[in-house]
Amino acid sequence: MLSEERYNYEGSGMAVMEMSHRSKGYLKIFEEVKADLRKVMNIPENYEIFFMHGGATGQFSAIPLNLLKKKADYIVTGNFAKKAAEEAAKYGEVHLAYNGKEENYKRIPKQEELKLSKDADYVHLCANNTIFGTEWDYIPETNGVPIVADMSSSILSKEIDVSRYGLIYAGAQKNMGISGLAVVIIRKDLIGEAKEYTPVLYRYDLTQKNDSMYNTPSTYSIYVLGKVLKWILNLGGLKEMEQRNALKAKTLYECLDNCDFYTPLAKKDSRSRMNVTFTAPSPELDAEFVKEAAERGLLNLKGHRLIGGIRASIYNAMPQEGVEELVAFMKQFAKEHAL
Amino acid sequence: MLSEERYNYEGSGMAVMEMSHRSKGYLKIFEEVKADLRKVMNIPENYEIFFMHGGATGQFSAIPLNLLKKKADYIVTGNFAKKAAEEAAKYGEVHLAYNGKEENYKRIPKQEELKLSKDADYVHLCANNTIFGTEWDYIPETNGVPIVADMSSSILSKEIDVSRYGLIYAGAQKNMGISGLAVVIIRKDLIGEAKEYTPVLYRYDLTQKNDSMYNTPSTYSIYVLGKVLKWILNLGGLKEMEQRNALKAKTLYECLDNCDFYTPLAKKDSRSRMNVTFTAPSPELDAEFVKEAAERGLLNLKGHRLIGGIRASIYNAMPQEGVEELVAFMKQFAKEHAL
Repeated sequence: MLSEERYNYEGSGMAVMEMSHRSKGYLKIFEEVKADLRKVMNIPENYEIFFMHGGATGQFSAIPLNLLKKKADYIVTGNFAKKAAEEAAKYGEVHLAYNGKEENYKRIPKQEELKLSKDADYVHLCANNTIFGTEWDYIPETNGVPIVADMSSSILSKEIDVSRYGLIYAGAQKNMGISGLAVVIIRKDLIGEAKEYTPVLYRYDLTQKNDSMYNTPSTYSIYVLGKVLKWILNLGGLKEMEQRNALKAKTLYECLDNCDFYTPLAKKDSRSRMNVTFTAPSPELDAEFVKEAAERGLLNLKGHRLIGGIRASIYNAMPQEGVEELVAFMKQFAKEHAL
Repeated sequence: MLSEERYNYEGSGMAVMEMSHRSKGYLKIFEEVKADLRKVMNIPENYEIFFMHGGATGQFSAIPLNLLKKKADYIVTGNFAKKAAEEAAKYGEVHLAYNGKEENYKRIPKQEELKLSKDADYVHLCANNTIFGTEWDYIPETNGVPIVADMSSSILSKEIDVSRYGLIYAGAQKNMGISGLAVVIIRKDLIGEAKEYTPVLYRYDLTQKNDSMYNTPSTYSIYVLGKVLKWILNLGGLKEMEQRNALKAKTLYECLDNCDFYTPLAKKDSRSRMNVTFTAPSPELDAEFVKEAAERGLLNLKGHRLIGGIRASIYNAMPQEGVEELVAFMKQFAKEHAL
């Protein structure tokens, strides 16, 4: 995907890495990436696209610094949602509209469980919870309060209706390329005055005014994102991507549901299409599973240290064949280690 | 330099871009890059190395957020030094120990011109001023007040005595690889409590505690930095790099000094070894110079929009041959366009 063109971009004699962010050559790339993202995600004209530094965690701070005037609702469905809420509490009143901690974040709350404030500046949610393997399959009704969604681990994995959100943000390293870059999609009317002590790079008004170039943006990461977007467009867009991801997830969950050996960790109605979490009958067998899988070239299956167990992350880059290989291994492992 | 190993790093079956920042494979890269930077720059043990997001501009905010308790001295020798001072003024009292604006930032001040405060928390300076083509050739005496230096455009270009500084920082895109990454070298005793409203990613104490991994760092940029460091080590380290850069700068400045056609912009005793700024006899000839040079594959010679003219940036990646090609063109252009 990233071929030799990096070393001589369109005959410019320069590598993309070397290009000045204000050079004509780079600005062409930059504009095309923005246009392609708008096309792929069907982003309405009243939304801005920002490329910012610091991944999603930077936005944990930037969002309250820019948007939190009086109070914000946070829906806590996992570790990153919790971190986002803790960071926001430094900058204003944070109301936890739901907290899944007592249930070990095993599920996404129903609409009627959300204790939403009428006067919140925004409602924050994490669309997909990588550690626990849960994902929102609906957009909550917030009666006009803008929804701010961390989509770091689900962006570009399915079609979404951008117009239902006030702000969507994502660290790039799951489905958009390489780490360091944050993509922010924000409804223009939400861009206003930030708190006076907001660092320049975290200010949405300045980012808008400078078209994400107040300083040198992560030029190479943006270029890689462009390649990812072309790949998605060539496949047939997010509709096709969504179908592929649905099939991958179905293949894995069917295997889990049809085999008593494994225990899925997320509640059935809250299952993530990106991160499939489960356990073998004992922590020792979890470890053995991860070890034997690695020997077969199936990597990174260890569950997050916060909950242990096994986790299969099946982001966009994972093909159906990879999932089927994993399922074949899971069946064999279950047979060999059956109690 | 960045070969196919990126796609199958040491037989791991994974590309560096894909690796989790907490995977064994990546942590090995990460530790090696830190060790190599310590070796190349001869960084003493009482200094920490941080990899942070946001380039140098992020540090314009992070430095006062972490270090500015009462007052800070800023020495303003160019546009970035000015921006750093303006950002710091949001967080505390800023005293301009020197301001070169009236002289169009044509020179670096002498020690006796600096109006340093006795009770400053730190003195900030910009070691090399890319736009104006000036560079510090001495380290000012500050009577124990820590010096904080922006070395974005001169780091790794020569040997420096790290122990004379309290904090050194640099955006990576000039001499260290690709944009987005900031490298911070800080004396451990300066790491303390940040202002309470400091965004998590800007806090030095948290960065230290998490070894630059509070969130996913710019993994690929760090990897590229590692490659740059190996290249420097193989050449013979910063001593050799310094000699090469000195020769490159000498070659260019001799050409300027021996040809009435061009006017150097920086004062002779303040000349940068990284950015050589000059003008042809008219703005029209400046433009013609840039155009004709580009036709010969000599790119990016247009002066910064703030001052116009011509600027040759001769960072580490530029070889002596490139400089000699430029000089040959300069001589020919002067002959053809002599008045």
